[in-house]
Amino acid sequence: MPVNFTPGPSQLYFTVEDHARSAFRQGIPSLSHRSRAFEKISKQTTEGLKELLELPEGYHVLFTGSATEIWERSIQNLVTESSLHFVNGSFSKRFHEIATQLGKQAHKVEVPAGQGFENYQPIGNPEVIALTHNETSTGVSLPLDFIHSFRTHHPNALIVVDAVSSLPYPKFDYTKIDSVFFSVQKCFGLPAGLGVWIVNERCIAKAESLQQQGVNIGTYHNLPTLISNAKKHQTPETPNVLGIYLLGQVIGDFLRKGINTIRKETEYKAAILYQALHQHDKVKPFVVERKFQSQTVLVAETGTATSQIAEQLATHGLQPGDGYGERKKSQLRFANFPTHSKEAYELLVDLLEKM
Amino acid sequence: MPVNFTPGPSQLYFTVEDHARSAFRQGIPSLSHRSRAFEKISKQTTEGLKELLELPEGYHVLFTGSATEIWERSIQNLVTESSLHFVNGSFSKRFHEIATQLGKQAHKVEVPAGQGFENYQPIGNPEVIALTHNETSTGVSLPLDFIHSFRTHHPNALIVVDAVSSLPYPKFDYTKIDSVFFSVQKCFGLPAGLGVWIVNERCIAKAESLQQQGVNIGTYHNLPTLISNAKKHQTPETPNVLGIYLLGQVIGDFLRKGINTIRKETEYKAAILYQALHQHDKVKPFVVERKFQSQTVLVAETGTATSQIAEQLATHGLQPGDGYGERKKSQLRFANFPTHSKEAYELLVDLLEKM
Repeated sequence: MPVNFTPGPSQLYFTVEDHARSAFRQGIPSLSHRSRAFEKISKQTTEGLKELLELPEGYHVLFTGSATEIWERSIQNLVTESSLHFVNGSFSKRFHEIATQLGKQAHKVEVPAGQGFENYQPIGNPEVIALTHNETSTGVSLPLDFIHSFRTHHPNALIVVDAVSSLPYPKFDYTKIDSVFFSVQKCFGLPAGLGVWIVNERCIAKAESLQQQGVNIGTYHNLPTLISNAKKHQTPETPNVLGIYLLGQVIGDFLRKGINTIRKETEYKAAILYQALHQHDKVKPFVVERKFQSQTVLVAETGTATSQIAEQLATHGLQPGDGYGERKKSQLRFANFPTHSKEAYELLVDLLEKM
Repeated sequence: MPVNFTPGPSQLYFTVEDHARSAFRQGIPSLSHRSRAFEKISKQTTEGLKELLELPEGYHVLFTGSATEIWERSIQNLVTESSLHFVNGSFSKRFHEIATQLGKQAHKVEVPAGQGFENYQPIGNPEVIALTHNETSTGVSLPLDFIHSFRTHHPNALIVVDAVSSLPYPKFDYTKIDSVFFSVQKCFGLPAGLGVWIVNERCIAKAESLQQQGVNIGTYHNLPTLISNAKKHQTPETPNVLGIYLLGQVIGDFLRKGINTIRKETEYKAAILYQALHQHDKVKPFVVERKFQSQTVLVAETGTATSQIAEQLATHGLQPGDGYGERKKSQLRFANFPTHSKEAYELLVDLLEKM
């Protein structure tokens, strides 16, 4: 089977199939979600994640159906009136649209696809600042300093970070972030069908205050309900039990490998591909400024050579992701997740250099 | 491994592990949800389900994270002001509570646990009539005639049926139902993490009218968005691709077996267990009236013998489900899903008769 570089669902982490086989052998897919055995699995996954991301005390791990759901739930639970969104691609744009659809005053700072943000001057008094750490559609990553600066600009705002296609790579300073979320089919290399939402006590207090004001914060997946269940290592609904188990197992694999090793390998693979793209005469990186170049989703401007490059890579067992939306036929995207080996990246670079 | 009679998550359908292995072999868990291959899988699942349930034209199959989500989405999308709920157990009660939490005038007709409804006299002008075909907490099933009678009583209302733990067993007259839903970890014997929501054109029109009135019907999972994606065999978010594939495969197995055979086997197994319970001197069926006795979740009033019976069954490899909630220590529940073989039921009955 080819190595799948599409940025999610992507190549499975190489241990997942074995973990799935073991799950079936242990009867995990038919486990009651109200059993002790499930609570143990849920605890192992959330505690493993807290260790992997080095989350401080007071940060909680919650499970949803998708990261898309978390866009909706976070606005619904954290915003009475207004949010401020940084929009530079299709996914940050969708997050903003969801806030608008929910009837909030959703303000935005917008730059064209492929760009990041410079010289932000605080505006207004938004309740939530919504930042997309890694724009999967364009391969733009926001520098951590930029993300961490909002605590100073807006001390009263909740800083909500979409890290769908970057975690666990970024080493966030969580004291400067109130909520972060991801979906398991990106860097964790798992089958899709599970979103992971991390919130701190400020988020919970805010949701409770909305609830007391009579604002509709949803039902089974409002924050107070999610939290009261999570404290018992439970979920309000019957969740994706198999997905939670597999996530816990892959987190265990990541912990054994070491987050520093994962980060270094990610940077090595990104460095060799960006170098090849910068030096190439037919293709170039879509994101020009190095400080905005994503380490986990690398986008190549391949122009009229797109289909030819994709076909040549395919003959060597490498399947790049299409460009996103209107750039489908002029770009290729390469996921650089923990499952993508150095060897696969070296082969990719070798092949590109020869084209 | 023991035969798991808990009513969901329950015993996996016996083909699921093989289908999962085949899915991994085909790369399905890492398939892009925007690919043709995914559309084909999604189409196979929805068309198979339409065939299995004999859905008329104009009924659409939608995917959510859970059936719990469908409680919320159905109220959010179908009710401007008022709904009417038939409450006779924990799950029908929760459906009613969700409508209340969403700020609707949620009226209810309530009877004690273990009972059904008699002699309904039409009241008010609810926009939605919410019926729980099979109360998983008590083993009460509403007769089909009762469910089908609401079209006459309330021609303008949308008839919404929770069939979480009964489909595909009941042979509904869909011309008298506007929406029905289930979750895959019950009768379909699949790993949890997927809800299936069936709606007709009246539901879509209603949701669109709410949207036009400025009522908040949610964002990525509002009905118009779900429908416009479903028409392309797509989903708004990255869905549980593996779950949708596995559902399609099990539906294929059910179709090959034949829905009539599945229904007859279900009735045979239910008949022998109810007979044993009726004739037993230490235990009896919790649901006394035969017309309300569920065919898919059978509840035994086991009183002080509960733990003893559970232990004896366990020594023979049979794992009953606990009673629900406050009846945890005085009842046992037995799922009677297509995966529970006639042989397993015959063994269960033999063992019970000897106790």
